[in-house]
Amino acid sequence: MTGWVRIAGLGPGDDALITPEVSDVLTQATDIVGYIPYVKRIANRPGLTLHASDNRVEIDRSQHALEMASEGRKVVVVSSGDPGVFAMAAAVFEAVEAGPAHWRSLDISVLPGITAMLAASARCGAPLGHDFCAINLSDNLKPWRLIEKRLRLAAEADFAMAFYNPRSKSRPEGFVRTLDVLKHACNDTRPVIFARNVTRPDEQIRIVPLPDATPDMADMRTMVIVGSSRTRIITRDGAPIVYTPRSTPE
Amino acid sequence: MTGWVRIAGLGPGDDALITPEVSDVLTQATDIVGYIPYVKRIANRPGLTLHASDNRVEIDRSQHALEMASEGRKVVVVSSGDPGVFAMAAAVFEAVEAGPAHWRSLDISVLPGITAMLAASARCGAPLGHDFCAINLSDNLKPWRLIEKRLRLAAEADFAMAFYNPRSKSRPEGFVRTLDVLKHACNDTRPVIFARNVTRPDEQIRIVPLPDATPDMADMRTMVIVGSSRTRIITRDGAPIVYTPRSTPE
Repeated sequence: MTGWVRIAGLGPGDDALITPEVSDVLTQATDIVGYIPYVKRIANRPGLTLHASDNRVEIDRSQHALEMASEGRKVVVVSSGDPGVFAMAAAVFEAVEAGPAHWRSLDISVLPGITAMLAASARCGAPLGHDFCAINLSDNLKPWRLIEKRLRLAAEADFAMAFYNPRSKSRPEGFVRTLDVLKHACNDTRPVIFARNVTRPDEQIRIVPLPDATPDMADMRTMVIVGSSRTRIITRDGAPIVYTPRSTPE
Repeated sequence: MTGWVRIAGLGPGDDALITPEVSDVLTQATDIVGYIPYVKRIANRPGLTLHASDNRVEIDRSQHALEMASEGRKVVVVSSGDPGVFAMAAAVFEAVEAGPAHWRSLDISVLPGITAMLAASARCGAPLGHDFCAINLSDNLKPWRLIEKRLRLAAEADFAMAFYNPRSKSRPEGFVRTLDVLKHACNDTRPVIFARNVTRPDEQIRIVPLPDATPDMADMRTMVIVGSSRTRIITRDGAPIVYTPRSTPE
């Protein structure tokens, strides 16, 4: 048996957002590797082994997947959202680069998924409808000053911004600083979207003007989207629509 | 019959990347509205009317969809990729905001799809594996100087960059200038990915160091991804892997 690794995106939570490409590869796998809550989303069946592991062991998990594929197993590494956006794909390739030479000959590919920012954007309208950036606010793997520099430059560029991992119990201060930086740099009332557990049954969406955004509105299950200076709100009965127009006048 | 509008993403080309949510809504539609090549992807059936229109008539097309929904039709506006990323969602909401008040009461929602940059990224590894930005290089709807400003700031922020609509016959000069700006601003050999017709049978992927990138490598069917200063290439037999590591050292 020739082994392989597929790094597959399960989307933000709703199974109706899993692509047929990913569903198909899950039926072919002998082993599923991933963070506990993502592996829980996979139905077990005879011939399939589930390997769930805790957070922050992405390299161990990647090495395990690559070792199993070397032994002929058909391994799917599952990620939430899209595996290429702040998820498992980069971790697997870090492990490949640092690992034994024969890992480079393995059949490895990435299967895209619906990443959280695009699901959250869809739920509110089209806040990312024009130029935007995506920033991981966790400073576990990069210095805080780099995050702050990117925030200031993104505001100057007038990008809409999508923030992954805005806040955790072990990093309560970063999002406080993020909001401070943005309130000063933007100095307007552009909308901020807090989309928690997007597409799941307990989804919560909150839209507030930037000056009213407070750190407690986000946790690790929240996707935060900040509009550009051009982002608009359409009020109506029910949830407002937030969108960024396609054009910027001369 | 109560009408509605669904703005749905068909993904980059391969039908295995269309979400079940989108496939399901296509079976419920009475009318499909969209740009000719996207509408061609929809199988016709009794009870379904296909309304294909040319490029650059996004507002007319949006108004048509909203009018039909007001009359009780079930209308799917189809986009390539994700409708919220340089596609039809923003156009529909522009039409809603400028249109008659009763359009705001319509049942309108956006169904996300796999956007081209994430499909292209998956095909090459994980070049967008850390902080990145997405820029539409067309200056049809915004001044060129804003694009150039964003390019300079994105290079300074050390974002990986994904470029939509890099070049067309009517705008041959913009991508020439884009490469000039980046070569000066980045001044290194980071990889540039040209992904044409990604996930289609005639897909072509080309990876070159930034100094070797030339304008003729892109056209309107090409997604361009430029790495950050940290982006790496893993060489091996067959296609190399391009990825951006998750960490930036202090």
